[in-house]
Amino acid sequence: MIVVMEPQATEADIAAVIAHLRKLGFGIHLSRGVERTIIGAIGDKKVLDGDSLEAMRGVEKIVPILQPFKLAGKEFHPERSQVKVGPVTLGGSDVVVIAGPCSVESREQIMETAGVVKAAGATMLRGGAFKPRTSPYSFQGLEEEGLKFLAEAREETGLPVVTEVVNPKDVEMVAGYADMLQIGARNMQNFTLLREAGRTMKPVLLKRGLAATVEEWLMAAEYILSEGNYQVVLCERGIRTYETATRNTLDLSAVPLAHELSHLPVIVDPSHGTGKWRLVSPMSLAAVAAGADGLIIEVHPRPQEALSDGGQSLTPANFESLMSRLTAVASAVGRKL
Amino acid sequence: MIVVMEPQATEADIAAVIAHLRKLGFGIHLSRGVERTIIGAIGDKKVLDGDSLEAMRGVEKIVPILQPFKLAGKEFHPERSQVKVGPVTLGGSDVVVIAGPCSVESREQIMETAGVVKAAGATMLRGGAFKPRTSPYSFQGLEEEGLKFLAEAREETGLPVVTEVVNPKDVEMVAGYADMLQIGARNMQNFTLLREAGRTMKPVLLKRGLAATVEEWLMAAEYILSEGNYQVVLCERGIRTYETATRNTLDLSAVPLAHELSHLPVIVDPSHGTGKWRLVSPMSLAAVAAGADGLIIEVHPRPQEALSDGGQSLTPANFESLMSRLTAVASAVGRKL
Amino acid sequence: MIVVMEPQATEADIAAVIAHLRKLGFGIHLSRGVERTIIGAIGDKKVLDGDSLEAMRGVEKIVPILQPFKLAGKEFHPERSQVKVGPVTLGGSDVVVIAGPCSVESREQIMETAGVVKAAGATMLRGGAFKPRTSPYSFQGLEEEGLKFLAEAREETGLPVVTEVVNPKDVEMVAGYADMLQIGARNMQNFTLLREAGRTMKPVLLKRGLAATVEEWLMAAEYILSEGNYQVVLCERGIRTYETATRNTLDLSAVPLAHELSHLPVIVDPSHGTGKWRLVSPMSLAAVAAGADGLIIEVHPRPQEALSDGGQSLTPANFESLMSRLTAVASAVGRKL
Amino acid sequence: MIVVMEPQATEADIAAVIAHLRKLGFGIHLSRGVERTIIGAIGDKKVLDGDSLEAMRGVEKIVPILQPFKLAGKEFHPERSQVKVGPVTLGGSDVVVIAGPCSVESREQIMETAGVVKAAGATMLRGGAFKPRTSPYSFQGLEEEGLKFLAEAREETGLPVVTEVVNPKDVEMVAGYADMLQIGARNMQNFTLLREAGRTMKPVLLKRGLAATVEEWLMAAEYILSEGNYQVVLCERGIRTYETATRNTLDLSAVPLAHELSHLPVIVDPSHGTGKWRLVSPMSLAAVAAGADGLIIEVHPRPQEALSDGGQSLTPANFESLMSRLTAVASAVGRKL
Repeated sequence: MIVVMEPQATEADIAAVIAHLRKLGFGIHLSRGVERTIIGAIGDKKVLDGDSLEAMRGVEKIVPILQPFKLAGKEFHPERSQVKVGPVTLGGSDVVVIAGPCSVESREQIMETAGVVKAAGATMLRGGAFKPRTSPYSFQGLEEEGLKFLAEAREETGLPVVTEVVNPKDVEMVAGYADMLQIGARNMQNFTLLREAGRTMKPVLLKRGLAATVEEWLMAAEYILSEGNYQVVLCERGIRTYETATRNTLDLSAVPLAHELSHLPVIVDPSHGTGKWRLVSPMSLAAVAAGADGLIIEVHPRPQEALSDGGQSLTPANFESLMSRLTAVASAVGRKL
Repeated sequence: MIVVMEPQATEADIAAVIAHLRKLGFGIHLSRGVERTIIGAIGDKKVLDGDSLEAMRGVEKIVPILQPFKLAGKEFHPERSQVKVGPVTLGGSDVVVIAGPCSVESREQIMETAGVVKAAGATMLRGGAFKPRTSPYSFQGLEEEGLKFLAEAREETGLPVVTEVVNPKDVEMVAGYADMLQIGARNMQNFTLLREAGRTMKPVLLKRGLAATVEEWLMAAEYILSEGNYQVVLCERGIRTYETATRNTLDLSAVPLAHELSHLPVIVDPSHGTGKWRLVSPMSLAAVAAGADGLIIEVHPRPQEALSDGGQSLTPANFESLMSRLTAVASAVGRKL
Repeated sequence: MIVVMEPQATEADIAAVIAHLRKLGFGIHLSRGVERTIIGAIGDKKVLDGDSLEAMRGVEKIVPILQPFKLAGKEFHPERSQVKVGPVTLGGSDVVVIAGPCSVESREQIMETAGVVKAAGATMLRGGAFKPRTSPYSFQGLEEEGLKFLAEAREETGLPVVTEVVNPKDVEMVAGYADMLQIGARNMQNFTLLREAGRTMKPVLLKRGLAATVEEWLMAAEYILSEGNYQVVLCERGIRTYETATRNTLDLSAVPLAHELSHLPVIVDPSHGTGKWRLVSPMSLAAVAAGADGLIIEVHPRPQEALSDGGQSLTPANFESLMSRLTAVASAVGRKL
Repeated sequence: MIVVMEPQATEADIAAVIAHLRKLGFGIHLSRGVERTIIGAIGDKKVLDGDSLEAMRGVEKIVPILQPFKLAGKEFHPERSQVKVGPVTLGGSDVVVIAGPCSVESREQIMETAGVVKAAGATMLRGGAFKPRTSPYSFQGLEEEGLKFLAEAREETGLPVVTEVVNPKDVEMVAGYADMLQIGARNMQNFTLLREAGRTMKPVLLKRGLAATVEEWLMAAEYILSEGNYQVVLCERGIRTYETATRNTLDLSAVPLAHELSHLPVIVDPSHGTGKWRLVSPMSLAAVAAGADGLIIEVHPRPQEALSDGGQSLTPANFESLMSRLTAVASAVGRKL
């Protein structure tokens, strides 16, 4: 349930309503907009039967929320949210392109790639320092050293950095280096990790799980939001189906669907979503046409030498060529890069 | 295996090579291009060991075909094919929009819809007269009467007509009314029906099966092609996954993938692909950005009264609005509507 | 809706009720049990408002049917049905084992296999004469010649024969040789073929489609039943999932589920269901433990020489060994082989 | 690669081989069997070219391991492993039945259920104290208090206890109460948690992920084994498919398949695997017939009052009835309960 306050409601009115709701046992999530304040009340609406809440000073209306996701839902926040990562805004009129290698492999590699993607027009840098790998014997990332290289690349290029965190106890440490935390697909229902990310004040990029429904994805976002961190960006990255010609099946319909159900920005990862570099460009164009607020794309200076996911990484030249085509499609749907 | 003939090869050279291949037991598919002639030879390449085929007059080279699809594959025909349906060309620079109701319900309904979609810029008309329905107790279509209404709508509007055929013995009859035969998703591996469609000279729209891989889809096309009918257009229409928020999961990556493997035109059905009219517009834009050669969209004058699939049909007003946005995206990717 | 007649209802009572229902526009399916007669009435129950049907002589009660499948459902026929194929009964206390090669390859091969499987205790023979193959260039079966060999094998061994039919126009011809018609997984929603099979008086083995829900499978059975042929046996044969270690994922829970929803016998095909001969024996035992009324198993005298599906065929020796283990499990769940 | 030592190899021989391998850069996993000792060497086999390892005293043979899972694979340990949990042995001739409620809800509930399942013949107790729930607003378990109740139930009944751990930092604490740690399906690729569980000396029950292949499941086990904890039991609990009539699709073919690839014991969870209590009994019987080494079944004294998963829990009466039928099937496949 949400309680919408009148534009002229005073701080005292708001405080009184919150105190009343707390007494009735509700959990409170406060959202102060430019126009008006909205109070999210999590709990059993039935205790309101015969109650005088609606008659309290400053209360405009009470809106029940039927969807299982509350804070992530459009009912709670009918307008699109914007999430700021340094100088970059996700969910605004600009389509944000995040680019970089799958893994940070060395200082040289990440510095070189950061320079390349910046020159081509990317506005954020990606790179994995902690890599969740199917095999314990595969390269697991450079860990904290990789984070240091990422921070150095940010200093040099000015590009804010997003990187994955996999261990709840590392959240604070990773947040010390990164501008945005990534929760990977395998951890979408690692609720301990979600809660921990919800307790930082860093923006979070939440990838859709390999076999997660759109509803479960929004419920995972709800875990982060319900800890007080509203800076969540959703990322569609392909789902697992019977088709083996692609690594995953990129579900672009999840973009308009998530936009219909939720106010959170939605971006797309065509690299993991297809697993084939030849498909990355057409699917990037398609994602923007479908309304995506951004893209996260793997670029590697020499894909054939990559320690992970080389087959789905663009070369700098292919990335540059994609950027100019993206500009045209973004403009065709009323946005810019 | 394909035998590529030199540009200056004569008719006699070609005939001699064909005769030689036939003697060795190969099936022959002849493809005469502007520049040169290509001879597809289906059979066991091993019989050529020690043979003099490569030395015959006019033979430029012999190309083995490794993919399981032969005539549908890029190896056989490296350039994109074009399929003509009346005045319309699929696979050229124009993005073709086919529109109309799910089912032909009455003379009035199809005439009204045809007028509406033509006015909005569609260049082909769709409408089902034979409806494969999950339940034997659901509306099964107007059958031949529906075909007559479709033909009448073509007379009135000039729009060529595509309609589904479900029974091998009806192929000839349906081909008598329609400009293009549709093989539906449920019948993608109805090999009897495919062969029958391959024996007509009508263009065929082949929908991808609900759980078909891209390879199986191309093999289904191969059934039609191998009967001598090369006028096949592929149609991605959503695959079955665990996600229930959409009717199917529209696999747009199948568009660039099919284009990479095959020379056949590929179009997209966002109506069945999503099952929700609100998702039809964004996914139509995305399909064109991904490189689709066309769209097939359900439009109904009054979706709430439709006998089938009302929930995924656009109103005329929504269709019109989509068409103008499609024009912009098509132009951004170097095509036109 | 079904109308249950009293045990003492006369033929005249029944005829009067049917006439009344027909006048109201219902389609009628009559089912005469040992105890009582049940009249299935397909149509809109609302026309009965204010009607006197319930008061007619001989009417015991009127039962609405909520499931989309009517004649296939438990509401229509609460007891398990039995289907007779020659001397064999499916759906009774015996677990029926149908065995034989994937394809009939030659007279010798089918005669030899028939002898082998009979000796091991199988009571029905399988073998494909029409093979629906993904590729038009694969072996498509011996067609009518194969049917003749099957009929000869029946003469020699006394085993009734089940074989697949793929073309609606061949139904009558195949029914002339076979004791039971098989509708394959790819044709589960080939409604033309289902109706044609419903018009014969031959028992039908209906395989579940590759991506069909249990409900869609029962609706496919409904197409056959609604043509008047009640002799339908369901066959679970594996569904398509993301798992690639097996050819399909054998969904054994479909056995008790179909038994809960429907009165039709249910058997299992562990050969196609797993695609690996090593898994055939454990999954056969599991199927019988789950309540399957039978099994259909591929046996080939020399699997490594099979023209199709050799990798999932049991050798005669493995089949024999399985039969003795099956006898023990069947007995543990109160049945016999 | 594994190095198999001769039965008469001395401790000194073994130590010498290990020292040599370590010098070459291999990681070592030592496995001492009754008959002989096996040395697992993880690393690049190529460094052995021209090496004298094979000639060292006590070395019988060197076996390359091709599968991506090493310690979990049959090549490393060709015989079936047994895992001991208190007095109970998983992977031996007995089929182990683990039973109890989905969640520990109160002291009374778990004590009552423990008594009931013990009386019916269960030999281990299950119950969740930490519940990973899709919604942050759902009941999340009694946490440490629940663990205390479980420990108390063990004291009273003698049944060893398995319970889920979801947070890496809780592993030690949970291991202090439980006899066996459960890694749930959502955490199958939570590699941090797997490694942490690998560092305890407690047996681990590893559920298959919702969309995990059998190979990925064995790779997840490898994470635990590679930390030195060889006490891993695999649990098939249903995979996510398009079918919605069941909560998941229980993939029983994973039982013989995992047994073919791995030496680890495999049990089945028919409660989550189907989500419907009516299907639990037939699928339990089927699992045992397919070769499962055990079952984990949800039993609740009053399922309609359960705080989670009531619809898939057996009543005590139904559980008792299942146990006697299980005994018969186990005996039919040469095992006992």
